Amino acid sequence: MKEKVVLAYSGGLDTTALIPWLKETFDYEVICCCVNCGQGNELDGLDERAKLSGASKLYIEDIVDDFCDNYIMPCVQAGAVYEHQYLLGTSMARPAIAKKLVEIARKENAVAICHGATGKGNDQIRFELGIKALAPDIKIIAPWRMTDVWTMQSREDEIEFCKAHGIHLPFDASHSYSRDRNLWHISHEGLELEDPSLAPNYDNMLVLGVTPQNAPDKETEVTMTFEAGVPKTLNGKEMKVSEIITELNRLGGENGIGIVDIVENRVVGMKSRGVYETPGGTILMAAHEQLEELILDRETMEAKKKLGSQMAQVVYEGKWFTPLREAIQAFVTSTQKYVTGEVKFKLYKGNIIKAGTTSPYSLYNESLASFTTGDMYDHHDADGFITLFGLPLKVRAMKMQEAEKNNNK
Amino acid sequence: MKEKVVLAYSGGLDTTALIPWLKETFDYEVICCCVNCGQGNELDGLDERAKLSGASKLYIEDIVDDFCDNYIMPCVQAGAVYEHQYLLGTSMARPAIAKKLVEIARKENAVAICHGATGKGNDQIRFELGIKALAPDIKIIAPWRMTDVWTMQSREDEIEFCKAHGIHLPFDASHSYSRDRNLWHISHEGLELEDPSLAPNYDNMLVLGVTPQNAPDKETEVTMTFEAGVPKTLNGKEMKVSEIITELNRLGGENGIGIVDIVENRVVGMKSRGVYETPGGTILMAAHEQLEELILDRETMEAKKKLGSQMAQVVYEGKWFTPLREAIQAFVTSTQKYVTGEVKFKLYKGNIIKAGTTSPYSLYNESLASFTTGDMYDHHDADGFITLFGLPLKVRAMKMQEAEKNNNK
Amino acid sequence: MKEKVVLAYSGGLDTTALIPWLKETFDYEVICCCVNCGQGNELDGLDERAKLSGASKLYIEDIVDDFCDNYIMPCVQAGAVYEHQYLLGTSMARPAIAKKLVEIARKENAVAICHGATGKGNDQIRFELGIKALAPDIKIIAPWRMTDVWTMQSREDEIEFCKAHGIHLPFDASHSYSRDRNLWHISHEGLELEDPSLAPNYDNMLVLGVTPQNAPDKETEVTMTFEAGVPKTLNGKEMKVSEIITELNRLGGENGIGIVDIVENRVVGMKSRGVYETPGGTILMAAHEQLEELILDRETMEAKKKLGSQMAQVVYEGKWFTPLREAIQAFVTSTQKYVTGEVKFKLYKGNIIKAGTTSPYSLYNESLASFTTGDMYDHHDADGFITLFGLPLKVRAMKMQEAEKNNNK
Amino acid sequence: MKEKVVLAYSGGLDTTALIPWLKETFDYEVICCCVNCGQGNELDGLDERAKLSGASKLYIEDIVDDFCDNYIMPCVQAGAVYEHQYLLGTSMARPAIAKKLVEIARKENAVAICHGATGKGNDQIRFELGIKALAPDIKIIAPWRMTDVWTMQSREDEIEFCKAHGIHLPFDASHSYSRDRNLWHISHEGLELEDPSLAPNYDNMLVLGVTPQNAPDKETEVTMTFEAGVPKTLNGKEMKVSEIITELNRLGGENGIGIVDIVENRVVGMKSRGVYETPGGTILMAAHEQLEELILDRETMEAKKKLGSQMAQVVYEGKWFTPLREAIQAFVTSTQKYVTGEVKFKLYKGNIIKAGTTSPYSLYNESLASFTTGDMYDHHDADGFITLFGLPLKVRAMKMQEAEKNNNK
Repeated sequence: MKEKVVLAYSGGLDTTALIPWLKETFDYEVICCCVNCGQGNELDGLDERAKLSGASKLYIEDIVDDFCDNYIMPCVQAGAVYEHQYLLGTSMARPAIAKKLVEIARKENAVAICHGATGKGNDQIRFELGIKALAPDIKIIAPWRMTDVWTMQSREDEIEFCKAHGIHLPFDASHSYSRDRNLWHISHEGLELEDPSLAPNYDNMLVLGVTPQNAPDKETEVTMTFEAGVPKTLNGKEMKVSEIITELNRLGGENGIGIVDIVENRVVGMKSRGVYETPGGTILMAAHEQLEELILDRETMEAKKKLGSQMAQVVYEGKWFTPLREAIQAFVTSTQKYVTGEVKFKLYKGNIIKAGTTSPYSLYNESLASFTTGDMYDHHDADGFITLFGLPLKVRAMKMQEAEKNNNK
Repeated sequence: MKEKVVLAYSGGLDTTALIPWLKETFDYEVICCCVNCGQGNELDGLDERAKLSGASKLYIEDIVDDFCDNYIMPCVQAGAVYEHQYLLGTSMARPAIAKKLVEIARKENAVAICHGATGKGNDQIRFELGIKALAPDIKIIAPWRMTDVWTMQSREDEIEFCKAHGIHLPFDASHSYSRDRNLWHISHEGLELEDPSLAPNYDNMLVLGVTPQNAPDKETEVTMTFEAGVPKTLNGKEMKVSEIITELNRLGGENGIGIVDIVENRVVGMKSRGVYETPGGTILMAAHEQLEELILDRETMEAKKKLGSQMAQVVYEGKWFTPLREAIQAFVTSTQKYVTGEVKFKLYKGNIIKAGTTSPYSLYNESLASFTTGDMYDHHDADGFITLFGLPLKVRAMKMQEAEKNNNK
Repeated sequence: MKEKVVLAYSGGLDTTALIPWLKETFDYEVICCCVNCGQGNELDGLDERAKLSGASKLYIEDIVDDFCDNYIMPCVQAGAVYEHQYLLGTSMARPAIAKKLVEIARKENAVAICHGATGKGNDQIRFELGIKALAPDIKIIAPWRMTDVWTMQSREDEIEFCKAHGIHLPFDASHSYSRDRNLWHISHEGLELEDPSLAPNYDNMLVLGVTPQNAPDKETEVTMTFEAGVPKTLNGKEMKVSEIITELNRLGGENGIGIVDIVENRVVGMKSRGVYETPGGTILMAAHEQLEELILDRETMEAKKKLGSQMAQVVYEGKWFTPLREAIQAFVTSTQKYVTGEVKFKLYKGNIIKAGTTSPYSLYNESLASFTTGDMYDHHDADGFITLFGLPLKVRAMKMQEAEKNNNK
Repeated sequence: MKEKVVLAYSGGLDTTALIPWLKETFDYEVICCCVNCGQGNELDGLDERAKLSGASKLYIEDIVDDFCDNYIMPCVQAGAVYEHQYLLGTSMARPAIAKKLVEIARKENAVAICHGATGKGNDQIRFELGIKALAPDIKIIAPWRMTDVWTMQSREDEIEFCKAHGIHLPFDASHSYSRDRNLWHISHEGLELEDPSLAPNYDNMLVLGVTPQNAPDKETEVTMTFEAGVPKTLNGKEMKVSEIITELNRLGGENGIGIVDIVENRVVGMKSRGVYETPGGTILMAAHEQLEELILDRETMEAKKKLGSQMAQVVYEGKWFTPLREAIQAFVTSTQKYVTGEVKFKLYKGNIIKAGTTSPYSLYNESLASFTTGDMYDHHDADGFITLFGLPLKVRAMKMQEAEKNNNK
């Protein structure tokens, strides 16, 4: 009996070409696994395509809710944003997919897992660190780094290779942006983006929505509620997280929300330039933050901000299944207990405009915030506060005056 | 001869009423000092007004360039933003003003400095910590906290008090937002903003610009150059920093840029809600960051982000004249040596849309970023990298498997 | 019926004098509450003494195990040390005591809580923040800050006052160090310590042990085991945490362990100088860290170190009952799951000398650590790793060479 | 004419064997360069040995003062300690050596630099990142990773290889600890240290001093002065830094100071165990910190602590010649301006015992620290301070009570 390999399969040219290649190169039985994170591609006919290409089996696994609840929400709650701007769409999906691949590999008693990520990107790291952490004994095959045995250099080569192996599928050799899509976002790399001096050609590029310029000249009002940091209703309707993100994607996409153009620093050491569309995600993070403003005290907010930034690093680097990610998440979860309330905002041509926030756990106290004095705050208290708050400065200034005087003697 | 007090004077009702009050209460000679940070108010006639109210002298001090070069630019370079959103307009101005007040006080041999900040706000702290740090021997008078001798509770009371002291000036008793303005921003507090569940009434409020909704439906293209982290030209024209901010204020105001509505945590312990307009500042910070993306390496960027956040805290708390602020600034200055280049972007209805960046010190390398292999990066290198990068995870996973096996024996 | 106050009672002169003073000044019924955190003082006869002084009731509450399990252990696990050196003995006890005082106040329906902490120290803050967080409606009485009604300036005054109220107890007017003691430590302030240029007079001062110089010239070998970050056995004997600390205090005290002499920064803004004896605590923290070295990965260790330092700040400032402390603790707890194993060390004249560590979850792998190549680590892997790890430096250096060349043209 | 390689040469077996190997394998002319960082080995006869082995030239470069002033002191001032314990002796030396190697390579127009660091350690990274940053165009040769052409596996093999190439030198094939030594420290790895469950065999191992047990039973009193963070005198005698470290090594070594036994996390991903002797360095860092306690304010100290920890990471990882290290150093330098004063301490059997500190810039104020009230601090001030400092907690507690009440309705 042949050894089995589980192949992360998308149905596209790259991963389809891998099926005969894996059989030929390693004499493996190939089990394809297509993990659905909401990438929105056509799953119909995928089974046929995989089998036709020589796979012995195709799993189509829907992990959209798992992805939303266990990967996206912890990052939203942490406020995890990489280098100020990237909402981690691809980074969060990779470990979720890796986990499912390992699960299938265990079920099938496979000895290896193969992925089609390139040799210069972050995704190879995220897939492989996920697999190593969950199944250190499973072999990982990364064809794009095996330049001695994987010799194809272009889409034309791959189409040729498929044909030579009897796979006649309507693949397209034309070039476009290199993209990754799931429920949370779509990323674009390549073409004019490779030159940072050029503006992105948004009209050819955008998939999930329009630019602010092309969005309608009218406001869209939105109301959301959260319970313990988790979104519960959108415009009055109770929905699960994946449904809320789907609907926010529609609203955000229409209103030109969540398009970012960045030069980011990859794990493997170089800068790369990409455009991300994260319409719903951008709204969800803003709404969550709008609510937290009312509820978290200053020091917790500040500490969470730092850890959220570190969470972004950890997730970006593919270190999802690590004690550090778990510990940061434990911190964040602890802060979300009272993040409950309602936020209102308007979407308008790329802007998210706050329009009022309420919470039973709001720390905002109108009488304190106003200019009057009262039971809880006497203006004299500020005297004492400033005296002590400024004491180190004053002592220092006096000591310096004195030291200077002595020096001048 | 009477002892002198230097009064931070704006020409408004509050500080005008302080002139007779200081004379009466402490028997001081009152020296008024109006520090111009670009607040844009009418300075004509101020001298007459101060004298008429009983001041023996009025200094009008223009510190706009000092404010821009020595307070604003260090914060821009640091990326100092308080609680994600507040660009520190008031916070940066207070120490600059305090320094000037101390300078005048020394020149006049004054024994005290008086300011009109309220007893529940941050500004009292910023003024007083500035004064303590620069002149620990000078007495500080904060009438709004002296509720036993400063008994006025309303604008009406103050007008009455002025009249009773022979000051007949056309002050207005009507209520509006509580505002603070300088070249960098204007802040709004009070009225409907005191209820966080309400949307701001922008149409009554905005001073420096319009909302995105009211901005024209056309893009404004902007080009800026920086040298060592300092803006040098705007749309091809060489200008000093204060001129650049002035012009960016105009462009940003017209295009609905830089309006934020936040619930922030004050130093004195309560949450307060305000709206800030920072049209030019928002653009300047975004442009500077757009350039840094190309130039700073990942780790420097990340470390600077953390310190920038701490700088924001320090400045917000009024601790400008401290070793910590100096040390953070030394760090930041060190990172700016190569932040030189050109950024292009478009302003459009509240959006700042990047449109290309170039720098002689760009770390972006097109051949590295693309998918090809080359001299500097062989795809095999990624194999070794991932093996070592993932080694701790893999060892951990193996040890855990082993420990579990032993536990199950 | 009179309103009740709960008085934090130690049986000493200060808090005894407070009993008649509270009755006289506020017409309260005084409920004394002596909370035992292991301070080792004589509790016999305390009831009689309190009643004789006019208290209507005395509670003696033993919270030693609560203190060890719920205050000390979280700090040990966090590695919480203030300003590199202070193991937070007093800081951790105050909230534990405050919680008990609130509990008694609720049970007694008291309207106020009174403590005897001075007006320049940290303890007033810790007591009061604890009470505010747990019972914001209860009034706090801090006599030492009420200089208008609490007029006693010295021990002699207090003895006089007691006598005048018919309390004839053998109090001593002589001066010594100002001390605070509990199971974890004893602190010393005052006398020669007030001059940082002087060495401490240890021979007059030490209570829990001896100096390294006076310790015996022989090694004491110790073995401890931990489970999930909690000490379980000491020298082979299973004990609860409070017993382990007690025994470590004995061992550490005999061997001159855990004496620190520091100038620390108080919350209220000034530097103060103290000596702390924490014999058992110093050993426990070192042993826990010795075990963690084997088990925690680098990044978790580093992140925990930062948060541990922040935990120390939070606890030092009296902010125990806050969301931030809870969140940090959640982080730390998450890291302790596998901190299980055995540590050996020797105590010798102030030194704790490691003598071997083992754990089922050790990440140390002998074959990896040695110089040979193997399955998990091929020397060639380091090539790829270094190429990518050093890529940003190399790209930068090349870009700089190029930019310089262009500048010189 | 042949191309030249610069070989980092120690005179030992490993690097001597590299001379003929480099000539044979690459047909290079070999320029040896022995960089003296105070490793204390015999430099006499080295020239002869290198030439005899086939080198065309030997440079002996003394960089001890450069190492002390420009590498050690910045780390001391930063308080840079890796993983709580390692004083970075080897880590700091590598970039200093790399810089000198590049300098010689430029002078000789060499095309390559060769080092003898192994393929599993940190030093290969430190050497190579240093070279990449300073000379990205120079080729790096790391024989220990070139297992296809560098086939020697043991000291016996190397001796054999030398003999076969006509090099007859008295090398010793016996095994000992793997060591690295310079003025700052000596490290030991291997033998029994490879098993973390074993105590180190100190008697066979220590080179720079004795254990606390073997140190004399008497105190050694030491007085040091610093100016702006740099040590200036030791026991009254003015010396340069390298002389001070040399003398502190003698004092510390005699008194059993600075021996640490740790399991550390290498850059290349595994844990390793080592013993470090840093007698003088441990004292110097402690003395510097003792002085800083008096001079730095709380927030600067805390921020510096965090950056010092990051500096340790950066230096440990070989990233000396980076913008981040420069920026951190700029921060640290800024904090050292007033770190001037005198520290006294005693050395005794492994202990450094503080014995008094003075500074003209001390922020310690005896009247403030004591229990009395005065001009600068009125006990009532603490009332106001605590009210505001505790305000967020109290508001939160009240809001929670209220929310709970509403929930229970």
